[in-house]
Amino acid sequence: MVTKVVDLRSDTVTKPSEAMRAAMAAAEVDDDVLGADPTAQRFEAEMARIMGKEAALFVPSGTMGNLVSVLAHCDTRGSEVILGDNSHIHIYENGGIATLGGVHPRTVPNNPDGTMDVDKIVAAIRHRDGAMYYPTTRLICLENTHGNTGGKCLSVEYTDKVGEVAQSHGLKLHIDGARIFNASVALGVPVHRLVRAADSVSVCLSKGLGAPVGSVIVGSKDFIYKAKILRKTLGGGMRQVGILCAAAYVAVRDTVGKLADDHTKAKVLADGLKKIKQFTVDLTSVETNMVFFDIADPHITPDKLCQVLEQRNVLAMPASSKRLNSVRSTA
Amino acid sequence: MVTKVVDLRSDTVTKPSEAMRAAMAAAEVDDDVLGADPTAQRFEAEMARIMGKEAALFVPSGTMGNLVSVLAHCDTRGSEVILGDNSHIHIYENGGIATLGGVHPRTVPNNPDGTMDVDKIVAAIRHRDGAMYYPTTRLICLENTHGNTGGKCLSVEYTDKVGEVAQSHGLKLHIDGARIFNASVALGVPVHRLVRAADSVSVCLSKGLGAPVGSVIVGSKDFIYKAKILRKTLGGGMRQVGILCAAAYVAVRDTVGKLADDHTKAKVLADGLKKIKQFTVDLTSVETNMVFFDIADPHITPDKLCQVLEQRNVLAMPASSKRLNSVRSTA
Amino acid sequence: MVTKVVDLRSDTVTKPSEAMRAAMAAAEVDDDVLGADPTAQRFEAEMARIMGKEAALFVPSGTMGNLVSVLAHCDTRGSEVILGDNSHIHIYENGGIATLGGVHPRTVPNNPDGTMDVDKIVAAIRHRDGAMYYPTTRLICLENTHGNTGGKCLSVEYTDKVGEVAQSHGLKLHIDGARIFNASVALGVPVHRLVRAADSVSVCLSKGLGAPVGSVIVGSKDFIYKAKILRKTLGGGMRQVGILCAAAYVAVRDTVGKLADDHTKAKVLADGLKKIKQFTVDLTSVETNMVFFDIADPHITPDKLCQVLEQRNVLAMPASSKRLNSVRSTA
Amino acid sequence: MVTKVVDLRSDTVTKPSEAMRAAMAAAEVDDDVLGADPTAQRFEAEMARIMGKEAALFVPSGTMGNLVSVLAHCDTRGSEVILGDNSHIHIYENGGIATLGGVHPRTVPNNPDGTMDVDKIVAAIRHRDGAMYYPTTRLICLENTHGNTGGKCLSVEYTDKVGEVAQSHGLKLHIDGARIFNASVALGVPVHRLVRAADSVSVCLSKGLGAPVGSVIVGSKDFIYKAKILRKTLGGGMRQVGILCAAAYVAVRDTVGKLADDHTKAKVLADGLKKIKQFTVDLTSVETNMVFFDIADPHITPDKLCQVLEQRNVLAMPASSKRLNSVRSTA
Repeated sequence: MVTKVVDLRSDTVTKPSEAMRAAMAAAEVDDDVLGADPTAQRFEAEMARIMGKEAALFVPSGTMGNLVSVLAHCDTRGSEVILGDNSHIHIYENGGIATLGGVHPRTVPNNPDGTMDVDKIVAAIRHRDGAMYYPTTRLICLENTHGNTGGKCLSVEYTDKVGEVAQSHGLKLHIDGARIFNASVALGVPVHRLVRAADSVSVCLSKGLGAPVGSVIVGSKDFIYKAKILRKTLGGGMRQVGILCAAAYVAVRDTVGKLADDHTKAKVLADGLKKIKQFTVDLTSVETNMVFFDIADPHITPDKLCQVLEQRNVLAMPASSKRLNSVRSTA
Repeated sequence: MVTKVVDLRSDTVTKPSEAMRAAMAAAEVDDDVLGADPTAQRFEAEMARIMGKEAALFVPSGTMGNLVSVLAHCDTRGSEVILGDNSHIHIYENGGIATLGGVHPRTVPNNPDGTMDVDKIVAAIRHRDGAMYYPTTRLICLENTHGNTGGKCLSVEYTDKVGEVAQSHGLKLHIDGARIFNASVALGVPVHRLVRAADSVSVCLSKGLGAPVGSVIVGSKDFIYKAKILRKTLGGGMRQVGILCAAAYVAVRDTVGKLADDHTKAKVLADGLKKIKQFTVDLTSVETNMVFFDIADPHITPDKLCQVLEQRNVLAMPASSKRLNSVRSTA
Repeated sequence: MVTKVVDLRSDTVTKPSEAMRAAMAAAEVDDDVLGADPTAQRFEAEMARIMGKEAALFVPSGTMGNLVSVLAHCDTRGSEVILGDNSHIHIYENGGIATLGGVHPRTVPNNPDGTMDVDKIVAAIRHRDGAMYYPTTRLICLENTHGNTGGKCLSVEYTDKVGEVAQSHGLKLHIDGARIFNASVALGVPVHRLVRAADSVSVCLSKGLGAPVGSVIVGSKDFIYKAKILRKTLGGGMRQVGILCAAAYVAVRDTVGKLADDHTKAKVLADGLKKIKQFTVDLTSVETNMVFFDIADPHITPDKLCQVLEQRNVLAMPASSKRLNSVRSTA
Repeated sequence: MVTKVVDLRSDTVTKPSEAMRAAMAAAEVDDDVLGADPTAQRFEAEMARIMGKEAALFVPSGTMGNLVSVLAHCDTRGSEVILGDNSHIHIYENGGIATLGGVHPRTVPNNPDGTMDVDKIVAAIRHRDGAMYYPTTRLICLENTHGNTGGKCLSVEYTDKVGEVAQSHGLKLHIDGARIFNASVALGVPVHRLVRAADSVSVCLSKGLGAPVGSVIVGSKDFIYKAKILRKTLGGGMRQVGILCAAAYVAVRDTVGKLADDHTKAKVLADGLKKIKQFTVDLTSVETNMVFFDIADPHITPDKLCQVLEQRNVLAMPASSKRLNSVRSTA
């Protein structure tokens, strides 16, 4: 008898489907570092098309996708990036843009919906203008959906508005679109439209989309050229990477259409949790595939709750000492 | 006829006194990079004594004092520093700790009095504990007086409290004490007591104290040893630096006692500005030698006002498009 | 009719075998970033055992393997690494250790056999000892086999000798062992013996061993712990990486035994080239799977020769304007 | 009775003359960080004129002068600099260009006369050209006179030749001219002619020229603008720096004419040392103000010899375990 486990820890735990495995087993490959892997090239061309950008690049992880993107836009010493104080890049990526890239992060508070106030973004922008004592702003980063605020979506209007701000100040706009397809589905907006204002987007393939490994970044040909050199510097250039791209191709083809189901399941879960009196859950925050809820009962700790759940074959993960992070994903 | 100019731009414009000039002309010097300059050594020993620390090091500027201090405490790759979002280090030092040192800045909001809420500091601290995805907090930075909030003083109690937080988490505490003597005088607390909780302090000698050039950093012998290597790396090791230390010695000896007069003059200025109906000035914010005031009349821009003042031999500097920054200093 | 192509460009062009593809299709996987992928763990344990070290870590590329290793050993600002002036890390890895990691490279000339003179290594070592003006040596890097000198092997005796130098000076020894199995086979020495003196080794899985993607680094548990954080910072943490590890497992199991054949084929090729009067080839340099030869005839350029060869279904790659780099690999 | 000490340790030990001290005591100063110090401006204009460049910038040390120059020319991530393996920047400046600036150093062997073979420089140049795996060369550095090879001069012809190489490859040329006035005097070539091919030059003021503190860098207005921002980032912006510039002005005015005497004294010293049978000294190497000699007698160590000399009021400094470095300077 196989015990069915419901894994709600994170959408990063998704496992490759049979179709993905078959694709990997059959993938035509060559040395991608020499620019010769046909499967990687086909996948990158397809992603560029879907995202509405000139070019794309497969990278081993979302962290590298964001790192390479920020560094490509901020290639001059003394660059500053404006980003959310609660954003994934700022909080969960080891500070790599500063640690490895020397890029100065300037944060603006993230609102509960994942946005930053546009006037606060504008106020944070700094041009050189002969001044000697501050870095030069080169980039604004958004995150859509915004993970730390529960997977809320940034609207087209908001994204476009920030894009206008960026453009009018000569800045670039990067979107950490780890879950951009979730936002696209939830908003009912084609993904290429949702990121039209962006100069670059990183898209995770191994979260809700279910590919085993990787992210892809998209942007102009010039951007991707720079990104490719940076990927090599970081050690993200992989030889017969077509293996992974083959799975990713299937993931994008087969899974995007199922994300709406994911979102429905997340709402069902949230509704159910809402009925349990020891828990509080903000139903309006459940827009995509994430459910965060707080434990009102002081006798129950997240760790303890997770243990009890695990005995019942449900896996979940504490988000903080009071908060449980249950992410609904494509099981 | 000599026109008397009242220079209210910043306390950085102070000029060396006759006593300082005489001291420079007579200073006994040798090669300080070889560790042989007697005047530098005497000055550093005196500053260590005054500040209540084991050792001291003369540096060419406050920016280098802070940079060297942060880098000395954060000497391991992947270090994070907690500092005020409105602090001088974060806003006005070219992002050097990230740009040159790869240290990740994590900001906590500065309150109008220059403090950061202690619970927000605590919440921002991150220990490694086996986690893979965030930097390790190594340092907390305070700024006393806090320039961007009008020269307000941090109390002994607050500083000690943050010191306890730092110590209990195994972190270091650095105080950007560019104007720590102003705080000491305004609070009526000996400077060594005010910085007792700190592992390092940078003190500016060329602001209110009036020395022509330089800052000094103080801390343990181990800290100063590391700082000395970093100073050399940055290019701050200077040969016959006793010349500058001689002036700084006089500055500390002669000028600290006059800072109270400065503060009185600043209050007089603020009181006077208060009476002008087009201006608004928060009198409670004038604790030391800084006066910031806002222009309520939309027809008057700071730039225009400065021009008018200059015609009357008063120099002032706009702090923002609405705000005029008049810093009272030892003229 | 299928045209048989002989691909002599590089051993990085190897394609996964059927057994590897089957292993990937069947691999049991989970989220390796959460430390839960069983196939990754099994592979890493096996590699640690084979290499005779405590622990191992899969990384997306040899460049990342070396970068992570150098950074892990040089985690303090102001670190210097001694390495060959013709080594892969110095010449072909985008200067990442300096660019991203701020590690200062100090080169010692590589002899034609890939060694550096031990006395030159010793002369280059710099301890702090109170000095203010130079970095501190923390690491020595060797490369075995040494690519830029034609794939020559470093002997056990030489490696041990450098290991003694490192140890007696309190330094670490890293071996760029991209092709360490080739060296092991050519020398007839077990690979764990060959790297016994090393604190860390990076081993490429996708060159002669034929895995589609990846390298593995080995060392002490402490080293691997640091390396894992750095891998995450660089963006090399991959989710269901067991897919790639499954192929790598097969590669190591099935291909090491075939490397001797590779070496034989390389010698046959070299012997053949030797007989062509327009070419010069140093037969003594052909110890493993690489063949470099020079074109003595001024009318033939490497580019032109490669074009002619390609028409005959032989792929090769110029190493310089006079030199053709034909690497014999497991076709 | 005053004991006369002959200090031959280094030309960095020079002390300011009475004229310099008087100039410092009388210097008209203002806040140079605000761009308002008249003495600094006058000095920088004069140095630009003397060196034949558009603009100049006073910096606290030669290390900062070189660091700022290299970083200004290499302002893009992934830059490589070609420099001598025995050059001051590479050996004695804490590896700052890599440690702080992430610039990758690529060394070419220094010949005994301080030159690098031009063909070796050319061979080391790397243009991007679509390649993914190496840094981009942006800068060549020369050192004139070359300290580690005994103060030998680079000729106009050699410097021009390297300048042509740089220009034809789109690179910049920086000269570490810590002792460029010594070279100018020894060669009988105006200093502006000697550095004509350079895009930037750093000149030490506190070595043979005798100013207490500082170096100056010269180049185009664009270069100096970048350098000024970098100087601020490093913490080298100093407030009433006119004090130091006043002394430097006198140093340049009064001391350049005396360098020929220095050189004569160095030759006299070398001739004398030559007559002592336990010493060997290469007379042809004594072109400027440096004398290095070796101790042939195994019973005499440099340390011991220095102690004996000190008892006789002669200060000297060991260059290595066999070599004594006696630098003749303006006492």
